[in-house]
Amino acid sequence: MATTIVSTVELPEKARELLRSYNVNLYELPKLGKEEQSSALSSAEILMCWCGREFDLTSNIKSMPRLRVIQTFSAGVDHLPFTAIPSNVEIYSNAGAYSVPVAEHAWAMILTLAKGLHKPVLNAREYLGNELTSPRKIIESTLLVLGTGGIGREIARIGKEGGFRTYNIGINRSGRPAEYFDEVYPTSKIIDVLPRADIVAIALPLNKHTRGGLIGERELRALKRGAIVVNVGRGDVVKEEDLYRVLKERQDIRFGTDVWWVHDGHEEIPPRTPLTALPNFLGTPHIAGGGAQREIAEYAMIRAVENVIKYLRGGETPMNKVNRDDYV
Amino acid sequence: MATTIVSTVELPEKARELLRSYNVNLYELPKLGKEEQSSALSSAEILMCWCGREFDLTSNIKSMPRLRVIQTFSAGVDHLPFTAIPSNVEIYSNAGAYSVPVAEHAWAMILTLAKGLHKPVLNAREYLGNELTSPRKIIESTLLVLGTGGIGREIARIGKEGGFRTYNIGINRSGRPAEYFDEVYPTSKIIDVLPRADIVAIALPLNKHTRGGLIGERELRALKRGAIVVNVGRGDVVKEEDLYRVLKERQDIRFGTDVWWVHDGHEEIPPRTPLTALPNFLGTPHIAGGGAQREIAEYAMIRAVENVIKYLRGGETPMNKVNRDDYV
Repeated sequence: MATTIVSTVELPEKARELLRSYNVNLYELPKLGKEEQSSALSSAEILMCWCGREFDLTSNIKSMPRLRVIQTFSAGVDHLPFTAIPSNVEIYSNAGAYSVPVAEHAWAMILTLAKGLHKPVLNAREYLGNELTSPRKIIESTLLVLGTGGIGREIARIGKEGGFRTYNIGINRSGRPAEYFDEVYPTSKIIDVLPRADIVAIALPLNKHTRGGLIGERELRALKRGAIVVNVGRGDVVKEEDLYRVLKERQDIRFGTDVWWVHDGHEEIPPRTPLTALPNFLGTPHIAGGGAQREIAEYAMIRAVENVIKYLRGGETPMNKVNRDDYV
Repeated sequence: MATTIVSTVELPEKARELLRSYNVNLYELPKLGKEEQSSALSSAEILMCWCGREFDLTSNIKSMPRLRVIQTFSAGVDHLPFTAIPSNVEIYSNAGAYSVPVAEHAWAMILTLAKGLHKPVLNAREYLGNELTSPRKIIESTLLVLGTGGIGREIARIGKEGGFRTYNIGINRSGRPAEYFDEVYPTSKIIDVLPRADIVAIALPLNKHTRGGLIGERELRALKRGAIVVNVGRGDVVKEEDLYRVLKERQDIRFGTDVWWVHDGHEEIPPRTPLTALPNFLGTPHIAGGGAQREIAEYAMIRAVENVIKYLRGGETPMNKVNRDDYV
């Protein structure tokens, strides 16, 4: 019996080709009319999903009685309506698919902020004399990365392996060692290591351990004078109101973010506080991962398909199985 | 007999301390009144000099009949009035003193431009869809560095040694191999290698070989589609009018510069064309080297003093002897 796979987006040709060797019926929703969509969903066993505004999983899940697997195209799964998903459905994320472009974006924000390129003025005395733009050196800085997963490790690699020769401190849930990190501590020690960092990169997933603001006023106030902080994880890891208050007061801190705060299930840009008006703030509209052209999106989709193929084969274990207990 | 050294600026305490072990009379001009300045200059054998607006060497050199050595604090010496300096005066530059911060600034401009952070908008569709901001990937790019001296080599190192794993092509006068470069070609081959580069970093000194615009319309038109170009060498290595014309037409090229065009002996910022108004242009006011706080300026001054000490000792050869034939 053929397995029915429904994708919420059109797949690249290479991904379709990979699936051709398997006994599957593939339906790509954008190619179908309303009725065909309903029929595809009713037979769906595997859902490959960008579950955002375009495809509302909460309302659609009831129309998928045969669903066994959800594979996301996104790296994060915090936006999934976990309570609505039947407990027998296995969920796989696409963690790691965007590590390289996201880490590059993190470094681009770090350097832009460090050298004052977010607010360049053409007068040298002003440029050098102003706390908002005066250039900071990067080489041999101490880099603190919150999250030692795919993205965090790639940020650490870029800093350490050569280029900027950073000294890398990592934070993860258990404090277990990770490649490219000189020291790693558990989440509970954040407050102790923050004052040591010249640069802080936040690359944490949003789950029940980080939601609601791992980084609040106390953590932000613990930052070293002149610290550069960038967030490419999830907006809600940082408390927005606290961030606004501390950044407004401490102009020595420069903060960049590609990720924003979620309200009613969606990232709101601009955010609710007037953060984007602060001169020591740099924002990009969640484009780090989707950035560098179609090649990245295609790569991510192919990776997701390859993971589904592991499931189809039966013998192999798919990667990135989501532990619902982290989210619910 | 004590040797008389005149410095056009106040030296850091550590530099003064280094000189104390030698038989020298040190005069720092800002500490002296008008008459004392004249008397110091008339006995000066070694001049340590920021020869810019603050100290006009052309008019002062006649008051220094005993002058034997000029040691600049700057890395470049293109601004010196070579024809006014007697031929028996030896000239030493401070090349290399600013390599690390300047190379970091070059990389900061590269990443800012590559990721669209010079013109961030908060709408993802616009950000990604616009040729001016759509993010480019850096990893495994081909990096062409014009100039394989201290700064060029440091730019190549940051790209190659780890981080971004760039493939490095260098250009220097003879085409001799250089550390951190996969291939090196002589200046005459620029036009052949330009189309291969994703990123071009200009780190050439200004001398008679590069003055008048090594990079003109023909070279700029040879750039690969979507190229990122940054200049941290000297403005006049690039022809300003040509640059303006090509950048205006080819919005796929993103250009950043920290160095500007010299008129009447001084860098003019803003420049004579409306370059700074172009959306694919990023400018900083020659702050790459002087940037990261006082520590860099002090380091550079100490280095210059250490070089003078090599001269004082007699046995050692000072570094960076300037070959006047390159400039006149």
